[in-house]
Amino acid sequence: MKNQFYPFIQELQNTITTAFESLDTKVRFEEDVWKRPEGGGGHTRVIEQGDVIEKGGINISAVHGTLPESMQVQFNVTNADFYACGLSLVIHPKNPMAPTVHANWRFFELYTPKGEVVDQWFGGGLDLTPYYIFEEDIRHFHQVCKKVCDDHHPEYYARFKKQCDTYFYNSHRKEARGVGGLFFDYLRENKEFTLQSRYDFVTHVANSFLTAYLPILLRTKDLPFTSKQREWQEIRRGRYVEFNLVHDKGTLFGLKTNGRIESILMSLPPKVQWRYNHQPIEKSEEARLLTVLKNPKDWIH
Amino acid sequence: MKNQFYPFIQELQNTITTAFESLDTKVRFEEDVWKRPEGGGGHTRVIEQGDVIEKGGINISAVHGTLPESMQVQFNVTNADFYACGLSLVIHPKNPMAPTVHANWRFFELYTPKGEVVDQWFGGGLDLTPYYIFEEDIRHFHQVCKKVCDDHHPEYYARFKKQCDTYFYNSHRKEARGVGGLFFDYLRENKEFTLQSRYDFVTHVANSFLTAYLPILLRTKDLPFTSKQREWQEIRRGRYVEFNLVHDKGTLFGLKTNGRIESILMSLPPKVQWRYNHQPIEKSEEARLLTVLKNPKDWIH
Repeated sequence: MKNQFYPFIQELQNTITTAFESLDTKVRFEEDVWKRPEGGGGHTRVIEQGDVIEKGGINISAVHGTLPESMQVQFNVTNADFYACGLSLVIHPKNPMAPTVHANWRFFELYTPKGEVVDQWFGGGLDLTPYYIFEEDIRHFHQVCKKVCDDHHPEYYARFKKQCDTYFYNSHRKEARGVGGLFFDYLRENKEFTLQSRYDFVTHVANSFLTAYLPILLRTKDLPFTSKQREWQEIRRGRYVEFNLVHDKGTLFGLKTNGRIESILMSLPPKVQWRYNHQPIEKSEEARLLTVLKNPKDWIH
Repeated sequence: MKNQFYPFIQELQNTITTAFESLDTKVRFEEDVWKRPEGGGGHTRVIEQGDVIEKGGINISAVHGTLPESMQVQFNVTNADFYACGLSLVIHPKNPMAPTVHANWRFFELYTPKGEVVDQWFGGGLDLTPYYIFEEDIRHFHQVCKKVCDDHHPEYYARFKKQCDTYFYNSHRKEARGVGGLFFDYLRENKEFTLQSRYDFVTHVANSFLTAYLPILLRTKDLPFTSKQREWQEIRRGRYVEFNLVHDKGTLFGLKTNGRIESILMSLPPKVQWRYNHQPIEKSEEARLLTVLKNPKDWIH
């Protein structure tokens, strides 16, 4: 399976990189190839200070070796080897009318010290973080998510949409990070599904990413905006930082287990503000965003 | 003791507020008085967008009630009541030549359900986070710290300086948050010290804060700087955010136990940048800062 999934994310990284580069006339993605001392490595591709994308990263990695102690506890195993590969991306557009997007698709495998596979699963998803609410865009994003899910299981969309709302939640602010999308983990082989059908689902979701996000970026990237709206975007990006540094399990795991810091923190927005007790004006567009984030919506019906 | 320490921090809040306000011609501190539903409350004083201080807070609080579950584990007690009061402050100057400063002095008490005191201690300290190294300023800060310590115990300065370097450490970056100062905790009554002598030490440290920091701010606040140096300050402020959100026990405790979010996150800098894999030019002043942060120095000898 890893010999099937890794080439898939390699090619997808190229496809997505090319798509975003075609939008930006100013700068291109730069690639860093890195090695993990304990086994494996990655290809980090970052774009900065573009005319459309202010900061973005499209990264793949494949790492393996002895399962770190902190993960032994998490997976309830001792003395195991592991293999993990995945693609993760974050795009922070410059225009505050354009939403930030995040996505990740990954495959994980555990082995006995003799090299026998004892567990394998897929995980990932995609989610949208707008600064201003354009209902049609959010509906489009969720409709693409739903269409893919419905091809694989009638309950997938509802389940993974809910998991996304639950996971990307700034509990200390009592608000969602964004307007969600899909989030799934531990998609294993079982009575109902083969590992191949899990692969088919995850790659179908991944292949739909550009369909879900690009039309939104294209529609919003050149909309006019004021310096006040830009300021709001920078303040809201602060919430993005808060989620990633305080709550995101992947980020914290990476930071505390000697991951490649620059690839992990690539997700943080380029320019951010924190104001004391900032409150949007009542009934403003900014207040409307907060209302939506306080009460995750059904974007389909 | 609490009837002695709380009036002390009330008066100190006024003294420090007045001192910083006298520097800023543009804006003044604004006070928010808040109540904690479970008992107690605080006075949060914040200044923003001043001509000297870009963002700063000088807060006092006194809270009490049933010890939250997460703290029961930390203090290894069950079914206790608590009282905690303290002053905490963070000053983020506008000029990148001026260092950020943080300080906190607190008193904590635990009771049986019948109201008998079972434990009491002081904690706190002060520490400096420069963006550019001016050795004389850092020496001055540490000399003030040492002088106060030496009046109370010959080993205090060395011990609390080291604890400060150890605590304010961004382990994921393998660098200190700043150039340190003092950090102490669990200063209890014991064979050597009465609680009153602990009070004398902590209030002596607190009363020396303005002597330690103000001359540095006065000397640096109007130094010329370039937009590149301002950019460096904003990037380094990102490390400040990383420490506070990933490692700082006080911040995380507050965020996860329903503290007053705006008072806790008041410490975050106003404008922050994250660049992918940013590295200063070799032998530049920016590189010099990193060298100092990688290897905590002895600033006295």
